[in-house]
Amino acid sequence: MNKTNLDKLKVVVIGGGTGVAPVTSGLRHLGVDISTIISVSDSGGSTGRIRDEFGFQPVGDLRQSLAALAESDGEEWIRKLLLYRFEKGEGLKGHNLGNLILTALQDMTGSTSEALRRAEQVFRLEGEVIPATEQVVDLQIEYKDGTKAVGEHILDDNKNAKEIETVSLTPAAEINPYAKKAIAKADYIIIGPGDFYASLMAAIAPEGIKGAFKQTNAKIIFIMNLMTRLTQTKDMTAKDHLEEIEEKIGKKVDFVILNSEPIPENILSHYAKSGENPVINDLNKDPRLVKAKIISNQIFTKGYEDSTHRELLRHDSKKLQKVLSQIIGK
Amino acid sequence: MNKTNLDKLKVVVIGGGTGVAPVTSGLRHLGVDISTIISVSDSGGSTGRIRDEFGFQPVGDLRQSLAALAESDGEEWIRKLLLYRFEKGEGLKGHNLGNLILTALQDMTGSTSEALRRAEQVFRLEGEVIPATEQVVDLQIEYKDGTKAVGEHILDDNKNAKEIETVSLTPAAEINPYAKKAIAKADYIIIGPGDFYASLMAAIAPEGIKGAFKQTNAKIIFIMNLMTRLTQTKDMTAKDHLEEIEEKIGKKVDFVILNSEPIPENILSHYAKSGENPVINDLNKDPRLVKAKIISNQIFTKGYEDSTHRELLRHDSKKLQKVLSQIIGK
Repeated sequence: MNKTNLDKLKVVVIGGGTGVAPVTSGLRHLGVDISTIISVSDSGGSTGRIRDEFGFQPVGDLRQSLAALAESDGEEWIRKLLLYRFEKGEGLKGHNLGNLILTALQDMTGSTSEALRRAEQVFRLEGEVIPATEQVVDLQIEYKDGTKAVGEHILDDNKNAKEIETVSLTPAAEINPYAKKAIAKADYIIIGPGDFYASLMAAIAPEGIKGAFKQTNAKIIFIMNLMTRLTQTKDMTAKDHLEEIEEKIGKKVDFVILNSEPIPENILSHYAKSGENPVINDLNKDPRLVKAKIISNQIFTKGYEDSTHRELLRHDSKKLQKVLSQIIGK
Repeated sequence: MNKTNLDKLKVVVIGGGTGVAPVTSGLRHLGVDISTIISVSDSGGSTGRIRDEFGFQPVGDLRQSLAALAESDGEEWIRKLLLYRFEKGEGLKGHNLGNLILTALQDMTGSTSEALRRAEQVFRLEGEVIPATEQVVDLQIEYKDGTKAVGEHILDDNKNAKEIETVSLTPAAEINPYAKKAIAKADYIIIGPGDFYASLMAAIAPEGIKGAFKQTNAKIIFIMNLMTRLTQTKDMTAKDHLEEIEEKIGKKVDFVILNSEPIPENILSHYAKSGENPVINDLNKDPRLVKAKIISNQIFTKGYEDSTHRELLRHDSKKLQKVLSQIIGK
């Protein structure tokens, strides 16, 4: 399929800020119409501070998703501005400028969705970023041992590693009407990659998500995470991931993209120290499985000893673009 | 002269943020090429906090001048973003978002001039804003009684009202090469209106300003302030203002624009309480004098009892546009 035909395709990407970024970057080069539906239950960090002080929805993941829409030449400084982080200044240190821009727009417009529309307009971004719900919510984690905890930041601490039963939003919140509309109109819906409970399951946690998926004829693509995460998906296989997503959206996924590229030993051992491993592929007999080499090589060169291992391994936007183009172009 | 001819004209406006804004707004509608050269010696406020914490040039006046370039329809949200002021948030309260954006760009580019170029690019602004010098400076005030004081914010406090001999920059600083170039190429140079010592004289205080004016064939227009200011120009007549400017730039001004519109009694009495009065016109025999009705009526309706009198009386951009168009179109 050539670019002119792809132009007309509407693609929805669902997840959190970090995972969604390489997908949208890749999709931009396919010239499709992109809407990203982003989880808004993060807490802690710059986002958490702003959220607590202003009472607005947290904007960290939305900012990352916006920045991913400003990836082409000439938009370099827009992306740099959105992602800039203050390293000094009393009260400013640790804040992302993009978060402050979105907070100002939330304050002026009174709505996160409206703030994003204005940001897309001011920065001439092609594509739209939609908060999964318009309500201010927290992530509620239900563990298999029957206990519960509230706050997405809990999942950042490996001391809190317990098997998760499911997550929900508190207070219970409706799906954003803009998200519902985007899902209804989509030709393709891509879920993932991203933190499984903190981003993906959180983004499809709002009430009405099943109804929205029932309304759409879109083909659904699930991009499997590369690694498990101790606090969220320890010991979960590819099938475990897939089935939980399908249960939440009330529908079967049409394609599952899974990495087939070997992960270097040094990276593996680094993850293994935290009890984290490649997601085991138990879907080889599943006809929906699409195996592809999709690991970013850039990360390996980064001197990972200094950074947390969370930044070690990422999906590569160019490689994702290739496999997505094959699926969408079918 | 029609708009097509005016298109080619290069106009430089010199001053501070607040005074320059209505001039550039007016000029924008004439379709001329606008460069504003802005004083960068402000201290105190959001600007001062950032300046102290980051060590960069203060950006408050630069932000206002940038925002004035985003005046047309469709740029409303760019202007709103640049002028937005945080009303809450620990460490954020009192900061202007535009200041934070410029600070981030200063940090990323290492230069205020470069930061402004990037801001103009990101926000698609037509026209350029140039800091009068690229060095980090303070305003030094020399009083007629022989004493000196350092810091522009000193001029904000009526308790510090003493007759000023002159102002200079400390440490001594060279004119910004971009400013020199803009002056050399200009067809018209407009000085004022604005705080006489804190903005106008500060903007032309850098070393090399006389050399820059010697290099240009531009016609020079001086827009006289409407009122005196207790801490700066108490008892100074129009001629006093004019002669000090001419001495600083080493050249005669070609046109002096002076308000001829009556100022309402209630406004006058409000100013009079602080010992401030309309600038006395002692230039009636000067052939360079251009009298025009240039007061903004909007301010009168603003419920001035709540605001400081500094915001009471402003020049009107439409009216300035008219008189400037007559001069430039000659």
